[in-house]
Amino acid sequence: MRPGLDFWFDFASTYSYPAAMTIAGRAEAAGVAVRWRPFLLGPIFRAQGWETSPFNVFPAKGRYMWRDMERICDGLGLPFRPGPGGGFPRHSVLAARVGLVGLREGWGEDYARAVFAAEFGEGRDIADPEVLAASVAVAGGNPEAALARATQPEIKARLRAETEEAATLGLFGAPTFMVSGEMFWGFDRLDAALAWAADRQGSA
Amino acid sequence: MRPGLDFWFDFASTYSYPAAMTIAGRAEAAGVAVRWRPFLLGPIFRAQGWETSPFNVFPAKGRYMWRDMERICDGLGLPFRPGPGGGFPRHSVLAARVGLVGLREGWGEDYARAVFAAEFGEGRDIADPEVLAASVAVAGGNPEAALARATQPEIKARLRAETEEAATLGLFGAPTFMVSGEMFWGFDRLDAALAWAADRQGSA
Repeated sequence: MRPGLDFWFDFASTYSYPAAMTIAGRAEAAGVAVRWRPFLLGPIFRAQGWETSPFNVFPAKGRYMWRDMERICDGLGLPFRPGPGGGFPRHSVLAARVGLVGLREGWGEDYARAVFAAEFGEGRDIADPEVLAASVAVAGGNPEAALARATQPEIKARLRAETEEAATLGLFGAPTFMVSGEMFWGFDRLDAALAWAADRQGSA
Repeated sequence: MRPGLDFWFDFASTYSYPAAMTIAGRAEAAGVAVRWRPFLLGPIFRAQGWETSPFNVFPAKGRYMWRDMERICDGLGLPFRPGPGGGFPRHSVLAARVGLVGLREGWGEDYARAVFAAEFGEGRDIADPEVLAASVAVAGGNPEAALARATQPEIKARLRAETEEAATLGLFGAPTFMVSGEMFWGFDRLDAALAWAADRQGSA
């Protein structure tokens, strides 16, 4: 049995972008199965008393993050054009709900990559249903059906439950990689998390 | 001329420990000259409204940090026995002042490694002048003279000026590596910072 890794991400999270764009290839090379777990950081941040991203709450850290992201994306050959200031973080609730639909229907990973590419590669607002519809289409889903299903009570409750599970696990940022209870936080820990999972292959 | 990197660290900072223990060898391999810059995070944290380390202010992040440090030190073969809880962060003012003396007198880097090893490898309290005196001796300095000089107005003012420079540069954590205005934060960015410096060799 292949070892597993849970990839927890928020569609509004900058460092989740390079993780989403590179995790499939890295995991394949490491022989690790990945489960994509969209969730919302907002409620977790609010529980710490933050009404917005810590990158806005702490400006020095925010300035650093934007420059760090530029360097990371340059190094990976990923476009990084997050658009004019003031739009960060984007509202990611609908994007996450549609993602949950897509992950059930088999087009969720391609959709997630399309959403991140639109958001951070082209500066699009992922709170806009049209941006999400285009991402669903690119991924091979039915945009109209997906967006309708995303706002049904079942999917809304599912996203709340996922976010509550993230809080229970002790998540405080994204991306976070969980390997049988072992937490790895940040894009810069992706390779360590994959190595951890691969080292434990067969021992679980 | 060799490209330079400023290694900003606080003696109380956990992630500064693996940086301090490994930077010399990595920098030598990369052909990069390192300037050791002890400073104090306390005033920078207080300016953000934190009376202690963010790892204490935000417990989920703190729990993660201790586990992450265990894994990092395991991977590097560094002992990690930070001692009983409640002692973090240690008061690092005197350690930093003695460090400034040592960096002027030529034994500062060995002293810094000895202090970090005592603190995080053996769980010693680096606010204790005897721990610092032993580290000075290990590094080849004169403990009595060094500790006396460390509390002279000139060195006290020097540490204040260093800390003010760190704040002006926008530092918000440690370790931070600066390469001609380019900031790299965290032990996990050490290799990227060295590569950045090496790539710009001769172009500065």
